[in-house]
Amino acid sequence: MMGSAGAFYAAHALCVLLSVVCVLLVAHWNSSYREGFAWDGTAKQFNWHPVLMVVGLVVLYGNAAVVYRVPLTWRASKRPWKLLHAGLLLLALFFSVLGLCAVFDFHNANRIPNLYSLHSWVGILTVGLFAAQWVVGAGTFLLPCSPLTVRTLVKPAHVWLGGAILVLSVVSCISGINEKLFFVLKSSTNGTKPYPQLPPEAVLANSLGVVIIAFALVVLKILSHKSWQRPEPRNEDEGYRQVSVDES
Amino acid sequence: MMGSAGAFYAAHALCVLLSVVCVLLVAHWNSSYREGFAWDGTAKQFNWHPVLMVVGLVVLYGNAAVVYRVPLTWRASKRPWKLLHAGLLLLALFFSVLGLCAVFDFHNANRIPNLYSLHSWVGILTVGLFAAQWVVGAGTFLLPCSPLTVRTLVKPAHVWLGGAILVLSVVSCISGINEKLFFVLKSSTNGTKPYPQLPPEAVLANSLGVVIIAFALVVLKILSHKSWQRPEPRNEDEGYRQVSVDES
Repeated sequence: MMGSAGAFYAAHALCVLLSVVCVLLVAHWNSSYREGFAWDGTAKQFNWHPVLMVVGLVVLYGNAAVVYRVPLTWRASKRPWKLLHAGLLLLALFFSVLGLCAVFDFHNANRIPNLYSLHSWVGILTVGLFAAQWVVGAGTFLLPCSPLTVRTLVKPAHVWLGGAILVLSVVSCISGINEKLFFVLKSSTNGTKPYPQLPPEAVLANSLGVVIIAFALVVLKILSHKSWQRPEPRNEDEGYRQVSVDES
Repeated sequence: MMGSAGAFYAAHALCVLLSVVCVLLVAHWNSSYREGFAWDGTAKQFNWHPVLMVVGLVVLYGNAAVVYRVPLTWRASKRPWKLLHAGLLLLALFFSVLGLCAVFDFHNANRIPNLYSLHSWVGILTVGLFAAQWVVGAGTFLLPCSPLTVRTLVKPAHVWLGGAILVLSVVSCISGINEKLFFVLKSSTNGTKPYPQLPPEAVLANSLGVVIIAFALVVLKILSHKSWQRPEPRNEDEGYRQVSVDES
């Protein structure tokens, strides 16, 4: 049991480390190689898109998903951790929607059509499913009037769709990074080497893609571990240890 | 129990249906819109790449993964189904490697560098992990001399990595289809409408991407269902029912 907890904390530390690396890489890519940020309809506004999607749809989303697996959170009432789970996901959804606004605004300002690429189809599907999952999740697990039978019925689907949305997020991010590098790394553009010659920017952004995949696999591994799941008390808003104490 | 089996067969039928749609869409795309197939270093050789990767790395791979979930296969010895699982995966690996040969040959014939894009990094990682998983899987579960303790130890990692490789396959396919459409659907090229105007080819190939994602999610859903797993007898090469009969 101690070994299992130790393995969990090692996996969780890796998850946090990869989160930090993802954020640093995506911020460094867009600030140092893509001329930084603005909200003015130029490419600088577009640069918010990868940063907000990686931070919201991948990093915050993945960390929110594993909150209940942290053994520290098992000792007290479930309610504050539920609020943290829902709160982090709401922030993740806010960042994702803001990230979509950045790219839609940029397209509209530059008369580029929206939602034509496969990347955009998968991306909009991902954010749509995420929004629906948040609303159904809040209605089911946060509203006090929601009956226990409904919660028990919805929970497996909620957990499964949560993992599926993370997979879709990764598909969206990788196809988006790949597409962006083909757009900007052309031999004709201001002296940079083209993508096939792997200039430093290409190595950096490709590495970001690999780290995003590693992060998502660690999160999915943590979620799949049966023995790392929060032991469920009879009343799900009570803490597990509390119930044990009551019983003794 | 009957309801659970009914739900399994519905999910499995959907899995088979989506497999057929994937194969038809990728074949139709490359034969009708991309000028068909050859093995001559031209774009016609490249066209084998998407077809072989979708058929091998997604369709055959996914169907091989769910073989043990089919209740029909629980009645007899596990050995023939193990050979079917390993055989389908070997065919899938063969198609995937042939698909890589198609694109490497095409690149070399046209002096295009290999392995620079994020799509290619993820793709080569996927096929590499798949090859390693097949070799370790065969050594662990097919070799009669492999001890039961090793099989028990390796199985959870084998099952988990199997799902992870399917996720990576989907990431590779979606980023590849997206990249290909940006390459070929340009306003300058022989009268076709550019990608942003969503010509029929773009709708077809984007739809292929969506169907690949749907197929993978159905496979992952089938694999995640605890009650759809093959009941394990004491001797894993015996059939479950057989063991029950022996005991009675």
